[in-house]
Amino acid sequence: MKNERTPNEQAISRSPFPSSRKVYVKGQLHDIEVAMREVLLSETKIHGRFGETEPNAPVTIYDTSGPYTDPDIDIDVKKGLPRLREQWVTGRGDVEQLGHISSDYGTLRAHDQTLDALRFAHISKPYRARPGMNVSQMHYARKGIITPEMEYIAIRENQRIDLLKEQLNGQYAAMAHQHPGQSFGANTPKGYITPEFVRAEVAAGRAVIPSNINHPESEPMIIGRNFLVKINANIGNSAVTSSIEEEVEKAVWACRWGADTIMDLSTGKNIHETREWIIRNSPVPIGTVPIYQALEKVNGKAEDLTWELFRDTLIEQAEQGVDYFTIHAGVLLRYVPLTAKRITGIVSRGGSIMAKWCLAHHQENFLYTHFEDICEIMKAYDVAFSLGDGLRPGCIADANDAAQFGELETLGELTKIAWKHDVQTIIEGPGHIPMHMIKENMDKQLAHCGEAPFYTLGPLTTDIAPGYDHITSAIGAAMIGWFGTAMLCYVTPKEHLGLPNKKDVKDGVITYKIAAHAADLAKGHPGAQYRDNALSKARFEFRWEDQFNLSLDPDTAKEFHDETLPADGAKIAHFCSMCGPNFCSMKITQDVRDYAKENGMGETDALSKGMEEKSREFLQKGSEIYL
Amino acid sequence: MKNERTPNEQAISRSPFPSSRKVYVKGQLHDIEVAMREVLLSETKIHGRFGETEPNAPVTIYDTSGPYTDPDIDIDVKKGLPRLREQWVTGRGDVEQLGHISSDYGTLRAHDQTLDALRFAHISKPYRARPGMNVSQMHYARKGIITPEMEYIAIRENQRIDLLKEQLNGQYAAMAHQHPGQSFGANTPKGYITPEFVRAEVAAGRAVIPSNINHPESEPMIIGRNFLVKINANIGNSAVTSSIEEEVEKAVWACRWGADTIMDLSTGKNIHETREWIIRNSPVPIGTVPIYQALEKVNGKAEDLTWELFRDTLIEQAEQGVDYFTIHAGVLLRYVPLTAKRITGIVSRGGSIMAKWCLAHHQENFLYTHFEDICEIMKAYDVAFSLGDGLRPGCIADANDAAQFGELETLGELTKIAWKHDVQTIIEGPGHIPMHMIKENMDKQLAHCGEAPFYTLGPLTTDIAPGYDHITSAIGAAMIGWFGTAMLCYVTPKEHLGLPNKKDVKDGVITYKIAAHAADLAKGHPGAQYRDNALSKARFEFRWEDQFNLSLDPDTAKEFHDETLPADGAKIAHFCSMCGPNFCSMKITQDVRDYAKENGMGETDALSKGMEEKSREFLQKGSEIYL
Repeated sequence: MKNERTPNEQAISRSPFPSSRKVYVKGQLHDIEVAMREVLLSETKIHGRFGETEPNAPVTIYDTSGPYTDPDIDIDVKKGLPRLREQWVTGRGDVEQLGHISSDYGTLRAHDQTLDALRFAHISKPYRARPGMNVSQMHYARKGIITPEMEYIAIRENQRIDLLKEQLNGQYAAMAHQHPGQSFGANTPKGYITPEFVRAEVAAGRAVIPSNINHPESEPMIIGRNFLVKINANIGNSAVTSSIEEEVEKAVWACRWGADTIMDLSTGKNIHETREWIIRNSPVPIGTVPIYQALEKVNGKAEDLTWELFRDTLIEQAEQGVDYFTIHAGVLLRYVPLTAKRITGIVSRGGSIMAKWCLAHHQENFLYTHFEDICEIMKAYDVAFSLGDGLRPGCIADANDAAQFGELETLGELTKIAWKHDVQTIIEGPGHIPMHMIKENMDKQLAHCGEAPFYTLGPLTTDIAPGYDHITSAIGAAMIGWFGTAMLCYVTPKEHLGLPNKKDVKDGVITYKIAAHAADLAKGHPGAQYRDNALSKARFEFRWEDQFNLSLDPDTAKEFHDETLPADGAKIAHFCSMCGPNFCSMKITQDVRDYAKENGMGETDALSKGMEEKSREFLQKGSEIYL
Repeated sequence: MKNERTPNEQAISRSPFPSSRKVYVKGQLHDIEVAMREVLLSETKIHGRFGETEPNAPVTIYDTSGPYTDPDIDIDVKKGLPRLREQWVTGRGDVEQLGHISSDYGTLRAHDQTLDALRFAHISKPYRARPGMNVSQMHYARKGIITPEMEYIAIRENQRIDLLKEQLNGQYAAMAHQHPGQSFGANTPKGYITPEFVRAEVAAGRAVIPSNINHPESEPMIIGRNFLVKINANIGNSAVTSSIEEEVEKAVWACRWGADTIMDLSTGKNIHETREWIIRNSPVPIGTVPIYQALEKVNGKAEDLTWELFRDTLIEQAEQGVDYFTIHAGVLLRYVPLTAKRITGIVSRGGSIMAKWCLAHHQENFLYTHFEDICEIMKAYDVAFSLGDGLRPGCIADANDAAQFGELETLGELTKIAWKHDVQTIIEGPGHIPMHMIKENMDKQLAHCGEAPFYTLGPLTTDIAPGYDHITSAIGAAMIGWFGTAMLCYVTPKEHLGLPNKKDVKDGVITYKIAAHAADLAKGHPGAQYRDNALSKARFEFRWEDQFNLSLDPDTAKEFHDETLPADGAKIAHFCSMCGPNFCSMKITQDVRDYAKENGMGETDALSKGMEEKSREFLQKGSEIYL
């Protein structure tokens, strides 16, 4: 790492992962470099042949940590991250750079000199689609265009770039040019994700690429059920935080451990400025719930909200670069009283704000009546919809009720409208659901919402464990991820109790990486099991450091091991800390293998059969009592 | 609590849970008192009617903490717990109290004066079945006898003793006497567990009651898929522990947080003596893996194991009061080479010991060839089999392979032999299994093992998260519990890395209580959701203390809350710490309810319909754009 960091910047987590290096894989269709993490492994000592070893190939890992873990890149939170996608965006010829901010509120803030000290210093002029143009990835996809974003994602999703290179021999670029707009089908190696496949999934609405043209710092990623399951981490500002670096660090920290997107749920006076800092320094897409800020602008009085004020908030945030908006347009007037007999009523903040507005005015939800107006804004910046489930259940007893499923049907109706505008759309889901009622959520979502990606909060599978709701919800999240949910919104141990600290955020992210990866394994995502196998092989061969380094959290794995056997020697010991030298089952297994080999058994099917013959003979002689 | 405890005894966790008291419910068939925990709740303040309140009924909770949380009971680890079941055992007239210990090893230890300081001072003479008698609960059940253990379990499993009393009006006792050996069927209130149902399930082999006649201190509990899902916690001695109290505390600590059984996996020189202390002070059944101790007796050389030595170990432990034995009798010679090509070979310690023995002698597993001899011991003390899965997979890649399922078929064969002897039997299961392969394990187990209870370790749903394997495995545990597994063996965060400390044990137990409870909800166990509903109602009504007290871990819930809003006033605040006064969705929901009520909407179905009419009207007028 270069030694030019200021004291403030040291608040940002930058150290590379142990025994890991950043690698960049070049595209073939576009001039792109896809960032990945490569974990280097030690050699296997061959049992019984002293001094002989065989190498273990490095393992490539999908990496959300962004430039922060690359020691060759200078980071200055005051300048923001490199604008990776800016030339891709401008190169398409369908955007214009505005002379000034379009929103009233953004303009007000920009001109407020008391905010100068707080303000990000290098704000670029916002981009917007030229009149009549649509800059959404869905729009390009439907025109048959494979964007740089799509190729980036295809390479990134495959992870195992070693195999990929071997299998393809550079063919996919040629194929993509020869058959634009056509799936490779039989030509695609089994399980390999091609740029064309990415395009087709986005065109069909089955996947979204959150990629606001004003957030060029973000590395392209995709949310869809035929890709790796993604996770979102929520962050918010806190009243006591003293520096912008600390706010940025929250996002960096969450991405470091695996957050694929960040939702910024900050509140309070300076959220506009805080958001700017976060977006400029975030390598992953940023989502928000614009109604929260709108409510602050009317001092918390839901009934004072208006479409005009909300519209201005959307434009304000779109021009800052927010990649997806949670919009609670499905909270219809007629659904609200269906919640009155629930144990926990309406628990979504956005949902209760809109319910209160509807009742106060006795009018239909303005997000619903102005939905097509919102679409016009979304497609001018490529902001994706995350259609909010404002009526999600807040406890087991309220799961899968008429209010929840009524709203889901409306979200399906709205999805079709968004797609008419080529606006990318995902659907938010619950919440608190017992295990036996989870699948119905997925089935209904797929049916009502035309296979638009599902994005769920957990679900929590019981209410009785406050303090452990990362776990109650990881159970539901893993299951619904397997069933087809594309992104899982994390839950921290502090859910229902308080604001998460740094440890809670990490616990939440790691727990959700577990759920997402378990789902990837169950879905058979190509390459997902490669990491499990490499780690298990390391475990079996007592390559402790490799086991730590391949794990989701190398620091904790090493720390836990060192509590029991701290000496460095123990990390190459041929027994593990649980059993001691005589009891270790892995050591005994190795003896079994050796024995089997010496006696011409095991290792090959033919030999196994020989062994089976022998034991069948024995069985016939010695175990008559059971036959 | 009485003030007579010595300093040593203060090492034992005894404080009652907050706002909880121990209650004892009398039996109707037998002179028994069933221990439960009752959580007292505060009153609900009625919104809008100042000073008016309505009470919330106390919630009864299944309680594994034993006498330790009853301040009226004196605890002296040197004397052991009250011998609750001793008169039940002797009252059946089929046991004799032996003049001395029957095992050679036990005798040797008893006569070794160097162990006097270590030895439990109040060792009772062991009980054993009179010649020709069978004292297993299965034997009684098949003869149509409802034992006190069975009635205790029926009351305990229902939890909601309040409803139970109302519904039954004391009828079940009469019915049980009128129809011995016959299911109540239509007479049983829906979802209520009767003593006769318990008997029938045990008779069928679908449930076991681990209850060694030499462990009369244990409170009766049942393991079967038509009952609450149970969890086991493993404990072991540690080389550095200074006192017996600390060893006892490990068991007490695990039971306090919810362990239904304890497996004592202690190793080393004094395991015989340590086990005595643990059993005498354990309110839950104790399981062991006798082959571990047998291996120590031959200095860790698996090939030196003999049937005679193993048999003596079984008798030694049975006379101490171990309630179930893990026996790896399914590791057959012919299965061993099937593991040679696995990534992680054989990871079960018992499995690898037996595999090594088989290969060394080229003979069939002596646990298999002597299985009926073992049954004779089991039924003389009522020790239950836990048939070990010595060939369980140790990583995702090895899941559901021929070795694993071959062994499972053999365990099914052995189950039928055990049942021929009326010996209670459960079947151990994996291990590491990806989500989509879990159900096949349950289906095959039910098919091969005649519905004998399944007892699984997790399963872990991915290999890539050492340090978090309580979570990777809770996902699999909750799912397999829902599918029908009767008991879940916990996994701590230290799995694969080191020895769990006190925090790890608590984390493991609470995580597994979550998995078990999530499974109970999904299975629709009568009464399981009552606690969720009570907690969620408390949460919605901002009764913070009630929310903490109803949770699995009140201490952590309160501590997490206090980190953000430490003042006592905050715990009665009508907003929560995440949102503040304007943003709180629960507050807004309450406003919505009030509004709905004022306007004649909500609360009743009729009014809801009125509201729906109104909004349908509105919709027709104002939202044509979407129709």
